[in-house]
Order: sequence, then structure tokens, then C-alpha cells
Amino acid sequence: MESSAAQQVVGTMWEGDFYSQWMGLVIDEIREGYCRLHFVIRQDMLNGFGIVHGGVLFSAADSAFAFAGNSHGKLSMALDMSVSFIASAREGEIISMEAKEIHLGNRIGFYEITGTNTLGKVVATFKGTAYRTDKDIL
Amino acid sequence: MESSAAQQVVGTMWEGDFYSQWMGLVIDEIREGYCRLHFVIRQDMLNGFGIVHGGVLFSAADSAFAFAGNSHGKLSMALDMSVSFIASAREGEIISMEAKEIHLGNRIGFYEITGTNTLGKVVATFKGTAYRTDKDIL
Amino acid sequence: MESSAAQQVVGTMWEGDFYSQWMGLVIDEIREGYCRLHFVIRQDMLNGFGIVHGGVLFSAADSAFAFAGNSHGKLSMALDMSVSFIASAREGEIISMEAKEIHLGNRIGFYEITGTNTLGKVVATFKGTAYRTDKDIL
Amino acid sequence: MESSAAQQVVGTMWEGDFYSQWMGLVIDEIREGYCRLHFVIRQDMLNGFGIVHGGVLFSAADSAFAFAGNSHGKLSMALDMSVSFIASAREGEIISMEAKEIHLGNRIGFYEITGTNTLGKVVATFKGTAYRTDKDIL
Repeated sequence: MESSAAQQVVGTMWEGDFYSQWMGLVIDEIREGYCRLHFVIRQDMLNGFGIVHGGVLFSAADSAFAFAGNSHGKLSMALDMSVSFIASAREGEIISMEAKEIHLGNRIGFYEITGTNTLGKVVATFKGTAYRTDKDIL
Repeated sequence: MESSAAQQVVGTMWEGDFYSQWMGLVIDEIREGYCRLHFVIRQDMLNGFGIVHGGVLFSAADSAFAFAGNSHGKLSMALDMSVSFIASAREGEIISMEAKEIHLGNRIGFYEITGTNTLGKVVATFKGTAYRTDKDIL
Repeated sequence: MESSAAQQVVGTMWEGDFYSQWMGLVIDEIREGYCRLHFVIRQDMLNGFGIVHGGVLFSAADSAFAFAGNSHGKLSMALDMSVSFIASAREGEIISMEAKEIHLGNRIGFYEITGTNTLGKVVATFKGTAYRTDKDIL
Repeated sequence: MESSAAQQVVGTMWEGDFYSQWMGLVIDEIREGYCRLHFVIRQDMLNGFGIVHGGVLFSAADSAFAFAGNSHGKLSMALDMSVSFIASAREGEIISMEAKEIHLGNRIGFYEITGTNTLGKVVATFKGTAYRTDKDIL
């Protein structure tokens, strides 16, 4: 099966994305304006209270946002993100992040990202805004 | 020199904070309602465009926020954070995060966190809101 | 038909909510954890560029959020909100705001609010976090 | 005394800004990248709990943000804002909003806006991000 343009773009990004690799992110679905991925919470992702560090949840959401935002092939950069931390999560839990494009203009794209655990419970919600340049990624 | 109560609290948090340890955070100053720390951007913190992953900047800010918010000794949890990504940063750069308490009520604390590079240029700004429980950390 | 507890609560709030009255908000649906309302953009809601002032869009969303958050009968207060302004809107347009509860804990509730125009196009998206007290509204 | 370019721009915006006029905003200082204004909380700005509606605080901050962001003479539009509601305020109180430019790039500007009451107490803090077009306002 041939890979789509969106898949090729994210494949190129992935090669140098050492931090997403460190998180062990697994991309489940990628298409223009959309990305769904998951990862497993490891011990080295915990904070001082024995639960997942909020920065790790945010990082996985940021990667999903970046993959969705760049999927159209033009280099895009995050401007703003906001996060609400709704529930905690523990070592061994599988967290899914789903990034959806709400609107894409000429220069600016708006995204919503939702993090859920294995039971489908929402652990965190995010909004993200990206600036799209003219530069081709491939 | 004896350590302050705030230092003892953050020392206790630090022991189990495997993710802050992974980031190589160095705490420069901690007192009630305040934390300043720094870290060096490593290759495994980069995204697919060869600059620091936004999630790493957020994570360091989140740790500074958590240390400042818990410094009073009561277990506190982040509710909301927002971030503006202002400038990119590269491998080898030293990033400082300074978290300041804007207001602390009975249950809710508000914080501003600013990330700067070695030249003092702002790379990202953050707001954070925390919920404070009755539970003693020590 | 008898009014529900949620309707009674919002009815009580409405009586003194002179600003929501000024906006001409019309509540279309109210139940526990949910509110949908609409209003018409008037000339005195415009900014200096002849489009609706962002503050008016936010205000209508904030009212929908407040009605949804207080619908359970306990006095609640907004802590944080974030907004993305996606599309502009003009005098005479009808804007709907729909507030949904994402999660309600003992003290903290999380909400998403979406603003759409008559054509169903999203004009702005919001997240809101509220603190719930023990105080009964009725 | 001659008015500066920034003052001329905001003067032009003000003429059609019927909503800022409704709020009774008084501009205390305007220069490139900066605006400070104040207003008095009136009865028609209250919510159902007898305190200022959060939307009014946001609206005044949004106007200060817009005046600061457009002060360079190029038409700019708000993309994202976040707000933390820190303290309530009552009828008759005077609220000041101060908007500062944190960074201005070619297309994107970042701002912080702080709302204080007569006693200098912070009532709300805001971050705002704006997109700057090539279009001259004058």
C-alpha cells in the first residue's frame, strides 16, 4: 500500500523527532488535519507524586498537534496552547491523544486535542493554534 | 546552613520526580511561592525540525510551577496552563524557568512562568492555576 | 409544565444578571451541566473595525459557561478561560453559544463552549474551568 | 501638542468602537506596543451574583490588547486569549487594564494584560496573541 502525502510528511518529521521517539509515541492514524497516537506511561515519566507528569501529557498532545498541523505539507509552528488537567494517570496506563483541525485559514490553523486513558476517560483537553509558513516540508 | 521548609518539600518531591530528573533540571532558587530552575537542551529533547520540542519547554515550566505551588507544604495539583511559544531554542542552549505566585487563595493559586534563554530573551510565557488540598506533603 | 431545578437556578441568576440582559441573550436549553443560548449582534457590540468585539463573543460564552456550571445548584466561580477567535461576525448575525460539561469533580468543573453563526460555522471556541462552592444558589 | 502615530491609529479605531464606548473606557496612555486604560463598573455590567461579569473584565482587557496591538499602524487581529479570574470586583470600582507587548515578530505579536482595582490589587491576568496583516489602518 502506498503511503499518503500526510504520512510521508510525518515520516520525515519523525526521523529527527528524538523526543517523540523517547516518549515511545505510536501513531495510529494520520491524515490531513488529523492525528491520533498513543503511548504507555513509564516510570521515567512520573512526577514527585507518583503520577504522570503533566508535561508528558502535554508533550504527547503537542506532538499530535504538530503532526496534524504539518500534515498538509507546509511547515507550521505552534503559537499557543492551553491545557486542562482533568484526571491523573499512572505508570502502565495507555494514553491516546487525538488532534482534530477545527479550522484552517491561509496562515492560521486551530486544533483541539483530547487525551483519554484505556477506559476512554478524558484525562486532559487541549486547544492549539499554529502558524503555517509557505515552506514545503518534503 | 539549614534548609527551609520550602526546600525540604521540593527535596521530597524531587526524589520521586523521575521525569524532572530525566530533563536534568537544576533548581536555582526555591522559596514559598517562587521557583527558578534551568536545564540544558539535549539532542533527545528536539522535535522533527531540529529545535527544542515545545513539550520540553512546557514540562520544565510545569515543574517550576509545581515546585512553586507546593512550596507552602500542602499538596497542590495543576488545573489549567496556557503557553505562548515566542522563540525557538536549539541544542546546547540553557533555558531558565521562573515561576511566580500572582495570588494564593484558600484553595486556588495563580502563577506566571517565564522561560528565557542564556541571552535573557523570552522563549515562552505561561500561566498556571493550581488547586491546593489540605494534605501535608511532609 | 414545571421548570426543572436547573431552570430555577438560572432563572434566579438571570434576574440580577444585568449584563446578560444587556446582551439580549436568549436561553434555548438549560439542564444540569449544559447550556445553549443565542443573541443577535447589535451595532453597540462592534469594535473599531466594524465587526463584533471579541469581548462580546467571550461574554456570551462566559454566560453560557456560568449557567451550565451553576446548573447543579451550587454557587460556582470561573477560574480560567481560554478562547480562540476563528472567524469574524457582523451586525445582525445570530450567534449561538453551547456550553458542555466535560468533567465535574467535587470542587472543580471543566467545560467546553463553542460559538457558531447562523450557518453553523464555528466563530470561536472556548475552554473554561470553574470552582464549585458548598453554597446553595436557591 | 501633536498626537503620535499610535494615538492617531487608536483615535481612528475608537470612532467606530461602539462597544468600548459603551463600556466607558478611558485611555490613559497609548504608545507603540502599549496601552493603559480604565473604566468604572456600572450596574449594567454585573452578573447574577452581584459582581462584575467576567465578560466585562475580559472585554476591557481585549480592548487594551487591541489598542496596543494595532498601535504600530498595521491592522491586527486577536487569535487567542487566556484569562485567570483572580478576584471579584463590585459596582463603582475603577478597574485599570494595562497591555504590554512581550514580543512582536513579522506576523505575530504576544501581549500580557493585567487588570487591577483602585487599591492596586490584581483582579485578572490575561495573555493575548495577535496576527498582524500588511494593511495600514490610517
